[in-house]
Amino acid sequence: MLQARVIGNVWATRRLEELPSGAFLEVEVVGSGARLVAFDILGSGVGEIVLVATGSVAAAWFPGKPPPLDALIIGSIDPASTA
Amino acid sequence: MLQARVIGNVWATRRLEELPSGAFLEVEVVGSGARLVAFDILGSGVGEIVLVATGSVAAAWFPGKPPPLDALIIGSIDPASTA
Amino acid sequence: MLQARVIGNVWATRRLEELPSGAFLEVEVVGSGARLVAFDILGSGVGEIVLVATGSVAAAWFPGKPPPLDALIIGSIDPASTA
Amino acid sequence: MLQARVIGNVWATRRLEELPSGAFLEVEVVGSGARLVAFDILGSGVGEIVLVATGSVAAAWFPGKPPPLDALIIGSIDPASTA
Amino acid sequence: MLQARVIGNVWATRRLEELPSGAFLEVEVVGSGARLVAFDILGSGVGEIVLVATGSVAAAWFPGKPPPLDALIIGSIDPASTA
Repeated sequence: MLQARVIGNVWATRRLEELPSGAFLEVEVVGSGARLVAFDILGSGVGEIVLVATGSVAAAWFPGKPPPLDALIIGSIDPASTA
Repeated sequence: MLQARVIGNVWATRRLEELPSGAFLEVEVVGSGARLVAFDILGSGVGEIVLVATGSVAAAWFPGKPPPLDALIIGSIDPASTA
Repeated sequence: MLQARVIGNVWATRRLEELPSGAFLEVEVVGSGARLVAFDILGSGVGEIVLVATGSVAAAWFPGKPPPLDALIIGSIDPASTA
Repeated sequence: MLQARVIGNVWATRRLEELPSGAFLEVEVVGSGARLVAFDILGSGVGEIVLVATGSVAAAWFPGKPPPLDALIIGSIDPASTA
Repeated sequence: MLQARVIGNVWATRRLEELPSGAFLEVEVVGSGARLVAFDILGSGVGEIVLVATGSVAAAWFPGKPPPLDALIIGSIDPASTA
């Protein structure tokens, strides 16, 4: 998993119909600064540090046929967590 | 997912017969500048900023036996979307 | 697999409910210095050099529906192991 | 998918018995210059620009139990294709 | 697949019990110099150039429930092979 900071929302009005309910959040990986877009169902906010799982496990979390999503926020990291 | 700009079409007349209908689009990842080819069924155009899912989730979206595709455009990002 | 050194724990009180029992450990890949968060059920400690499997195989290890985890510590490397 | 130029053949006489018929081709990714070995069943030749799918979708293309192959040439890019 | 040179053995006495029989070998990717640990059942030796498949296809090769392994040596490259 990656630790990343939420940067903002990404809106895609025109998109595949099979996508589940939730938000697309742009996140920046802590350390490398790489950016990606992760799907969020936890209501994460801008500035929050989150844990992102990538690859097919992100899609497999959803019930039924897996949606075409390759990054999912699985948790919010507690402030001053790493120790 | 990756945010990427559509650069152009890629044509492959000689190819595996099992590929579904749609377009191969060359895209450039916003930020890193990395280029990849994503499959598109949304009719995305050159210059458009799109959301690309990579890996096996791209193939699993298709009905039946998954085609050998590892990148799928899942949406078109609204102009001035990130906020 | 990656060889990585355990750097510390990562706590995520607010998280998806489906996550199994175990610890989130921040690890640093030997050589590249890249950091990621791996799931641990072996009780690995800070400073230990571990072997990390990434991708869907990490999730497939768990019984039942695979959890959304993309990195799993599969072993602890014996001191002075590489030879 | 990646656009890559075929560099040459790779021969592996001693190998897992479960590998299907076809060729291992060394390819160089256009742009990044990264090299990988892709499996080919299209008869691609040295110098040709091809489209390579990576990851488990490459293996899933084969009938029956998926072979341990993580890169497959899925098409040959038409000369002067990108536009 | 990656072409890589075998650097040495990695021993992990304390590890998940579900791992199959075989060796963990540290390998260095030809060209990039990146290092990873691949599982080997071919008896590959130090200095040998091998072909490594990564990701879930490495695990899917094994019979039964896939083990948490993400890199498998699938062949030994013949000396002076690339041409």
